[in-house]
Amino acid sequence: MTAEATLARFREYMVGPARFMNLLSCFELGIVDELRARPGLTAAELGAAVGAKAAAIEQMLFLPVKEGFVAHDETSGGYRLDALADVPEAELAGVVDFMHFIKVVTLRQLFHLTESVRSGTLVGLSEFYGFEGTLYEAAATHKDIGDPWSRVMNATTARIDPWFFANIDVPAGSRVLDLAGNTGLGAIHTYRHKASPGLTVTTFDLPEREEDCLRNFREHGVQEHCSFIGGDVFVSIPGGFDVVLVKHFIDMWDKDDVLRILSGVRDALEPGGQVHILVPIYPEDVHDTDNYTIDFFPSFFLGCSMGYGGPQKLSVYRAWLEESGFTVTQTLAKDPADLPRYALPVQAILSATKPV
Amino acid sequence: MTAEATLARFREYMVGPARFMNLLSCFELGIVDELRARPGLTAAELGAAVGAKAAAIEQMLFLPVKEGFVAHDETSGGYRLDALADVPEAELAGVVDFMHFIKVVTLRQLFHLTESVRSGTLVGLSEFYGFEGTLYEAAATHKDIGDPWSRVMNATTARIDPWFFANIDVPAGSRVLDLAGNTGLGAIHTYRHKASPGLTVTTFDLPEREEDCLRNFREHGVQEHCSFIGGDVFVSIPGGFDVVLVKHFIDMWDKDDVLRILSGVRDALEPGGQVHILVPIYPEDVHDTDNYTIDFFPSFFLGCSMGYGGPQKLSVYRAWLEESGFTVTQTLAKDPADLPRYALPVQAILSATKPV
Repeated sequence: MTAEATLARFREYMVGPARFMNLLSCFELGIVDELRARPGLTAAELGAAVGAKAAAIEQMLFLPVKEGFVAHDETSGGYRLDALADVPEAELAGVVDFMHFIKVVTLRQLFHLTESVRSGTLVGLSEFYGFEGTLYEAAATHKDIGDPWSRVMNATTARIDPWFFANIDVPAGSRVLDLAGNTGLGAIHTYRHKASPGLTVTTFDLPEREEDCLRNFREHGVQEHCSFIGGDVFVSIPGGFDVVLVKHFIDMWDKDDVLRILSGVRDALEPGGQVHILVPIYPEDVHDTDNYTIDFFPSFFLGCSMGYGGPQKLSVYRAWLEESGFTVTQTLAKDPADLPRYALPVQAILSATKPV
Repeated sequence: MTAEATLARFREYMVGPARFMNLLSCFELGIVDELRARPGLTAAELGAAVGAKAAAIEQMLFLPVKEGFVAHDETSGGYRLDALADVPEAELAGVVDFMHFIKVVTLRQLFHLTESVRSGTLVGLSEFYGFEGTLYEAAATHKDIGDPWSRVMNATTARIDPWFFANIDVPAGSRVLDLAGNTGLGAIHTYRHKASPGLTVTTFDLPEREEDCLRNFREHGVQEHCSFIGGDVFVSIPGGFDVVLVKHFIDMWDKDDVLRILSGVRDALEPGGQVHILVPIYPEDVHDTDNYTIDFFPSFFLGCSMGYGGPQKLSVYRAWLEESGFTVTQTLAKDPADLPRYALPVQAILSATKPV
């Protein structure tokens, strides 16, 4: 890589924040919706419609026109959707939800990334919200974080869970524990996808989630099969289970904590019982340019969501499972070709057995 | 452009802020300097050197390794500079200065881009600094903005001014006015590059700049040839000049204000006098992917520096000069091939004459 090429690549990085917000702001201002409804509007007409000066609209649309997202007729001065017209509206709405999540949860907070890395705490969350703790705790009390976060998490879960449950073994009549199962969505999905005579699913999470969780079970009519146990995974995990599910959780922790979690899972399982882990992974070849997990997650975990943690390679998680006394029975990475083209994380399943 | 390609391009935008801060933070933490001094350090050694946990260093270095900026030996666990080792240190320091400027002046402020576009004011500057006004006013009182801004502006001026003065005509003995000349650097450069018997240069800017400006003239030994006049370009520009220079200024304003400025310049010039404008421009073909002015400047002006304004195409500035009664004698865009590979703006010179 020549110095020229390196500096040219730096330039791509330097315009990253500006490009991101210029594009997102065109959606926030309502410019894209206006152009979809009324192709051919001029900057002056768009400005009148969205409440901004014509000159500002012209500036905001230079970049979408450069990209071919929007077309500009220099003779009439009219704009219309170009490439954006060909993206299904529901899919585009999903991307914009994700961009809004990135804006709210990361854009300002990343300003404090360096101090966050040094302190192992979320300096941005403290600065902008006066909040000491993790993103997941802040999401519970700050709707402006919690709502965009829930929308993205629910969309991701809806996409990933069918794949997860299609690829794990839950024997008929199992007693299943959903570790760090939040307010029960994972338990409900487990029952839906894996129902069998005698199957029970227990959500394990902090005691304050119990009320919401039990209400969710009732609302989904699974209260006969699902239950809640309150506690802290780092203190004690209840025992007597045939299957433990660990979804979207171990990527939040550094190695020491992951080993503590896996040790607790081993204690919770009957001999011969299975653990199934769902987790975003970095590619084995970190130079793989088709994988964006590396581009987003390090600074997300260190600066925006935990102050520590972050995904690992599948081979690392496999080694940590073996180090914790498990026999790994399956590792399966989602095929990036099956992901939406805007998806950032590549998910994997690791299944393992507690030796008899 | 297929929907697939459009969404893949959105993904590049979505990781923009994360990539930017992950890379910059590796410099801020001192990781790059450590690796330059001691190639082969492990994550644990780097963490000890820069004051962070080894696990966090590993996460921060995934992206530089993916890019080939840094190399990682999986056997020893050691890291060393890869492509970064081949970039001259002074040039790399210049890029990092620019990235620091982008972080301080734009990253958080862009969060409020949409409200800034609607209001025509800098909502981010108000939110984060309690400051009502422009970036240039804030830079005078907030060192954390002013210092990075000055470093980037001085580096840009040092690079661009020799080209500017090599390409404009300043007849011997001219009376030159440097419009919005700040604290005199432009006047000093004018005298240095264009000295001739009888040449005088007058800096015109807000009265509060006078003291700093006159001190600069004395310190550079040009006080016999340079003077200062305080005032406001939108109220009245002094007259009786042969040449007016307008550098880094008209891109800050919308068309109406640019026309008012040009009208004032015409009044300040003797018949036959010349104006020379230095300004960043958008490319005539906005789809030109080698030009990054469009990627950075709209959101910079609307959300971070003025709340309005922004560059135009060279042809637009030419038309505005003609609309203001000037005869355009020269338009010259800097060849992007002559710019450092990390430069964002492409500058141009427009020269014009006030008809006799």
